[in-house]
Amino acid sequence: MENTYVIGLDYGTLSARAVLVCCQDGRVEATAVKPYPHQVMDRVLPDGSTKLGANWALEHPEDYILAMTETVRSVMEGREDLKNAVVGIGIDFTSCTILPVDEAGTPLCCLKEYEGRPHAYAKLWKHHAAQPQADRINLVLEERGELQGIRYGGKISSELLLPKVLQMVEEDPEIYRRADQILEAGDWLTQTLTGEGRRSGNMAGYKAMWLPESGYPDKEFLRQLHPELENIGETKLRGEMALMGQPAGFLTREWAGKLGLPEGITVAPAVIDSHSGLPGSGVSRKDQMMMVVGTSSVLLALSEKPFARDGVVSGIKGGIVPGYYALESGLAAVGDMLGWFVDQAAPESCAKAAEELGMNLHSYLTKKAGELRPGQSGLVALDWWNGNKTPFVDGRLSGVLTGCTLGTKPEEIYRALIEATAFGTRRIIDLYEEAGAQIGEIIASGGIAEKNPLFLQIYADVLGKKIRVSATEQTAAVGSAIYASVAAGAAKGGYDTLGEAVERMSHIHEKAYIPDEENGKIYHELYGLYKELSGMFDPGRNSVMARLLELKSGI
Amino acid sequence: MENTYVIGLDYGTLSARAVLVCCQDGRVEATAVKPYPHQVMDRVLPDGSTKLGANWALEHPEDYILAMTETVRSVMEGREDLKNAVVGIGIDFTSCTILPVDEAGTPLCCLKEYEGRPHAYAKLWKHHAAQPQADRINLVLEERGELQGIRYGGKISSELLLPKVLQMVEEDPEIYRRADQILEAGDWLTQTLTGEGRRSGNMAGYKAMWLPESGYPDKEFLRQLHPELENIGETKLRGEMALMGQPAGFLTREWAGKLGLPEGITVAPAVIDSHSGLPGSGVSRKDQMMMVVGTSSVLLALSEKPFARDGVVSGIKGGIVPGYYALESGLAAVGDMLGWFVDQAAPESCAKAAEELGMNLHSYLTKKAGELRPGQSGLVALDWWNGNKTPFVDGRLSGVLTGCTLGTKPEEIYRALIEATAFGTRRIIDLYEEAGAQIGEIIASGGIAEKNPLFLQIYADVLGKKIRVSATEQTAAVGSAIYASVAAGAAKGGYDTLGEAVERMSHIHEKAYIPDEENGKIYHELYGLYKELSGMFDPGRNSVMARLLELKSGI
Repeated sequence: MENTYVIGLDYGTLSARAVLVCCQDGRVEATAVKPYPHQVMDRVLPDGSTKLGANWALEHPEDYILAMTETVRSVMEGREDLKNAVVGIGIDFTSCTILPVDEAGTPLCCLKEYEGRPHAYAKLWKHHAAQPQADRINLVLEERGELQGIRYGGKISSELLLPKVLQMVEEDPEIYRRADQILEAGDWLTQTLTGEGRRSGNMAGYKAMWLPESGYPDKEFLRQLHPELENIGETKLRGEMALMGQPAGFLTREWAGKLGLPEGITVAPAVIDSHSGLPGSGVSRKDQMMMVVGTSSVLLALSEKPFARDGVVSGIKGGIVPGYYALESGLAAVGDMLGWFVDQAAPESCAKAAEELGMNLHSYLTKKAGELRPGQSGLVALDWWNGNKTPFVDGRLSGVLTGCTLGTKPEEIYRALIEATAFGTRRIIDLYEEAGAQIGEIIASGGIAEKNPLFLQIYADVLGKKIRVSATEQTAAVGSAIYASVAAGAAKGGYDTLGEAVERMSHIHEKAYIPDEENGKIYHELYGLYKELSGMFDPGRNSVMARLLELKSGI
Repeated sequence: MENTYVIGLDYGTLSARAVLVCCQDGRVEATAVKPYPHQVMDRVLPDGSTKLGANWALEHPEDYILAMTETVRSVMEGREDLKNAVVGIGIDFTSCTILPVDEAGTPLCCLKEYEGRPHAYAKLWKHHAAQPQADRINLVLEERGELQGIRYGGKISSELLLPKVLQMVEEDPEIYRRADQILEAGDWLTQTLTGEGRRSGNMAGYKAMWLPESGYPDKEFLRQLHPELENIGETKLRGEMALMGQPAGFLTREWAGKLGLPEGITVAPAVIDSHSGLPGSGVSRKDQMMMVVGTSSVLLALSEKPFARDGVVSGIKGGIVPGYYALESGLAAVGDMLGWFVDQAAPESCAKAAEELGMNLHSYLTKKAGELRPGQSGLVALDWWNGNKTPFVDGRLSGVLTGCTLGTKPEEIYRALIEATAFGTRRIIDLYEEAGAQIGEIIASGGIAEKNPLFLQIYADVLGKKIRVSATEQTAAVGSAIYASVAAGAAKGGYDTLGEAVERMSHIHEKAYIPDEENGKIYHELYGLYKELSGMFDPGRNSVMARLLELKSGI
């Protein structure tokens, strides 16, 4: 049999990437990246005059179309002989990134009369201006006694769909009324490519309070939020859902022409970018956990039961992997915090020593930190430099360093920060295991995982689990391609199960980081101290950090 | 009347200093410094082969004699015309620094047969090897229900006299038995100069559990510590006590000759070096507090009642100023901690920016920190980089930094560290005021006070008190000279009261740092957070820091 191919599209915050991947062995034949010309709009609209409020973050959907067309044409360029072997397209996208469209599927911001209206644009996942709406939704849920029951880690965050929609109907009801649909940007792209209306169950399940069993939240609750939201499930959020593995639809003639691909090939439902990293990094068994470690971290593990507490979200059954719930949480700062340390707190003496050795500061500090034994620094940190997701779901929390003496060395602090993120990760894994996950192995990917063996060994020692690193470079994009191959199915040259596709299309390095028993014992003690320290700053019992923040804001 | 003069001798940890001071206006006519040739011995004895244990710190008393002879001759050199106008000598010394001497007053380490015996040398104030003995003394006091009653801040520290003596009798009973007296090094010097036996009531009161009313601790208690200590008060610690303002004795012909001074002039009793800074810096009224801020800080305030709790020691009535108790505490790290920050945690970018402006890093960070408003950083620190004296009397406590975010800047941390020391100081002053001190003005001296206006303004704002800086450069040495002038008395060309002597002989800059009301309000809030944070790490309730230290030591 001839090789078949799939295209994976990965929409990040600042650019989109396309990969052309071989279904048989996962080889990435070609890759192309396109930055968004408008980038993130957080101060003014493209007219240059309409100002945005604090914490706004918009994007222009034209950029998404441009990026798709350019990158797909680019990966196919000079490979016309492969065109007819392409059997599917998959798209992952940041989420919840939503936009209002008219009956023709045109984003309202692309209509002349609305181009000066902020609510007509795509609200990016990190648009945090709907925090007052999120607060109100949580209040309503609490009054109804339903806050603990929702599957969103115990609280609705301003990044989810309902706060963003509520902000729209409250602040610009005309835009809300004019919208025929409000769509995840990923869904808007699959609708555009297929001309059909199937939405991503993955995104709706994780971001829009949609459940396969009962759909969107009940009308009474929606009406309590705002009268105009009552019927939103059948109107602006309407449409059939497709779960991962199923097709969202098939490529229209028009878009086949625009992209230079065969008409009618399968288009997979959109998937949240961090989720497509799960198959992309090689996780295929329920005893494996995905860990992406970059500026922040994402941890995904499979479970047979739903679970939602302390910032852990299990979403819906089949939301990421058919047949399973997928537990999701992560740390709000990992590489970001180490980067902060190098920029803001590593002394000149380190910089000079690193330079003499021809190393960068991260490498130098890692080398020095690697010469320390666990516990030697006498330090323990709380890794909350960017707030805390699990267990406190509180972005206002801040970092703590304890145990400083006149003898404390920079590499000791650097190592303490790495260890703190490992402890934060263990905290999450403890909850996953409480939720029923059985994690025997961690598959790591992301910038830090690929570059820092000390980091991974500390994690193995702290977590008491074997860690291997994904051999796939673009885990999210390849994951989208894998979903496309499963949506296409074996009959069309793809796969019938996600497990088979992952086994064939993504790869894991053989080398494993094995937990060291002695280090593990010390880290067990230190983890106890970390938990105790985090309990001391539990925002439910202690308000020191919140009051510091008030003083900072000058309230 | 012709001018009269006094000599002040200031014995520090590494060197001694002599000043020749005019009694009429406090002018320092001459000054001379002599470093100790043997320095601090913390590894081996002068034989180069006898090793010392961990935490030992010894000095060689020969150095003290050498330093006295050289520096006094040096300040008198070329001033033979003033010789007969010199009316007194005062000595301040680190304390408790003790040594065993034979019947002739010769230190045992100067006898050939004992020069290889560590216990024959002077144990420096910071000799911490008697910690097990201190622990045992505290246990005995606790069993007797007397721990709260002692005037040592609630606990006997290993720096005091009894632990050091107990270590001697336990570890080298032959040296203990051979000693005719065990003396504070300062007392050894006044005995040497005068040939008499009056000891320093100041040192005995603050360091040897001696009380003017009842003398040394009772025999039963001493026997409980060790049978051979039972009669130590009448034997090895025997001698009349002289309080400050009284003479210890008069200069012998032999030493008048050696020093080039008139025979028979008054020698003041020795005084603890930090205490002589009180008159030296210009404190003469009971509504003034002395604050010496250098690597660490010392705070002395006058009170009419004794007080001893939470690391605050009031010593004995008249111990420093006739008629008053003097409350004493301080911070274990101030300049040391800021120095740590500059060396170990100020980034290269700061070093470069400072260099471009031709500033050192402290000045640069002070400049940047001065541009911040109180509370702006969102940080609060516990200043325990070198343990905590008040309120916890626990050297094992360590520093904490709270409120770190990805936006935290070096100058914000620098300012937070300064603020933390101001909060720690306020904590002490709160206790002083509880003890009855009425502090209207703070007289600051020491390296940081002289150099850093931002530091003093932050202190004024945090403490809500006016601060002025002493105009005297060598406050300890000048203080010793002032004590000498009072011990000599007006009839001999000195003064009859300490108040008069201070008014005339030490000076304070006119410029005052006045508390800013608005900043004071914010700092009041931040101080509340500081106290809350320190309560969270109260070693009586929380053992996180102690356990970190155990992991650090590999226990």
